[in-house]
Amino acid sequence: MRRNEFTVTEEKEIDAFLSGMSFGFLGTVSEDGRPRVTPLNFVYDQGIFYFHGSRIGEKIDHLKANPAVSFSVADEYAVIPSYFTDPNLACPATTYFKSVTASGRAEIVTDVQEKAAVFTLLMKKLQPEGGYDPIDPANPAYAPRLRNVAVVKIVPDQVTAKFKFGQNLADDERNRVLCGLSSRGGSRDLETAELIRVSAPAEPKKKRGTPDRNSEINE
Amino acid sequence: MRRNEFTVTEEKEIDAFLSGMSFGFLGTVSEDGRPRVTPLNFVYDQGIFYFHGSRIGEKIDHLKANPAVSFSVADEYAVIPSYFTDPNLACPATTYFKSVTASGRAEIVTDVQEKAAVFTLLMKKLQPEGGYDPIDPANPAYAPRLRNVAVVKIVPDQVTAKFKFGQNLADDERNRVLCGLSSRGGSRDLETAELIRVSAPAEPKKKRGTPDRNSEINE
Repeated sequence: MRRNEFTVTEEKEIDAFLSGMSFGFLGTVSEDGRPRVTPLNFVYDQGIFYFHGSRIGEKIDHLKANPAVSFSVADEYAVIPSYFTDPNLACPATTYFKSVTASGRAEIVTDVQEKAAVFTLLMKKLQPEGGYDPIDPANPAYAPRLRNVAVVKIVPDQVTAKFKFGQNLADDERNRVLCGLSSRGGSRDLETAELIRVSAPAEPKKKRGTPDRNSEINE
Repeated sequence: MRRNEFTVTEEKEIDAFLSGMSFGFLGTVSEDGRPRVTPLNFVYDQGIFYFHGSRIGEKIDHLKANPAVSFSVADEYAVIPSYFTDPNLACPATTYFKSVTASGRAEIVTDVQEKAAVFTLLMKKLQPEGGYDPIDPANPAYAPRLRNVAVVKIVPDQVTAKFKFGQNLADDERNRVLCGLSSRGGSRDLETAELIRVSAPAEPKKKRGTPDRNSEINE
């Protein structure tokens, strides 16, 4: 993927994030306009998302009726309690996270060679240590299974990424969050602190009047 | 929530799962039928999902145009490599997970007392240790903030839960998965093994001809 809205560095961060996440959430729409969200394992390769599943069922029915899809992957790093920055109000309570959401069209992959290539990518991601015969449609053990499984690709026409690590904070607030994470010392708090440091805007913000109350992790 | 399709035990498991998960994925549909998936923090109380966010933006536009929503929460416990049960084929590779997906109608909460009650529940979930003044619309520091934030509730008309822990396995396959998890000893492998044991069907299955290839974690 190379998109105008992202720098090369951002694209690399998106790639690295998606490579490290094993599952995401597919949004589809039924023929009569009802949404469905389905969690599923995926692989992301050269700007395209791939997943597989049953050839029958509501998800595939949705895709056939309306190929417009949304696909979202998110990872929460830390809950940031309000008292890190405010002794009284609950409002600054928030979470720091990475999320990537793509929208585009789903296409059902029918070519068995392409299906085999997708499973090869998926296995390299989820089982990098190997331990299986190469996925080859010429292998009679794989051939019927490849025919009988649905493989879907999403070619995004829009990708949004949000990595929220206190970029909106004034310097004194950021320092209080860093101090709070250091004291708490949870399993991902050090990692979160490092991401706050590298995400800090070069141009420091003044202390804001209104703390960030927005819980949405992809707005 | 009390639904005919779940036993009381299952309802308690669903409640416990949703209480322990800080964020989920909201599926909405635009006026012209395009889906959107938005990750967001939520709280689940007495069968109703609540979240908050900005009063303006695409998500709220979607909800106003079409209140039908889907909301999905999933947690992956373990990747189960194919070689735990098959020395040759990649097909048995899968993941074990819990997921709960609700569909229903979104309603925008406008009453400030109800908004305050929702934030109180959300804070109790995400910041159980406290450390803030009670969220009360009579408090002049909270009042304008409560007016200026959108709170949305989802009253589900359908809830599906899938806790996938090898229930489809024959006894010999289950034992091999348990043995593999024990040898690997990853951070959640012991917890996963315990869930496999308690999820094992009372009526053991015969060895199946076709291993489970389905990656979808909510079908």
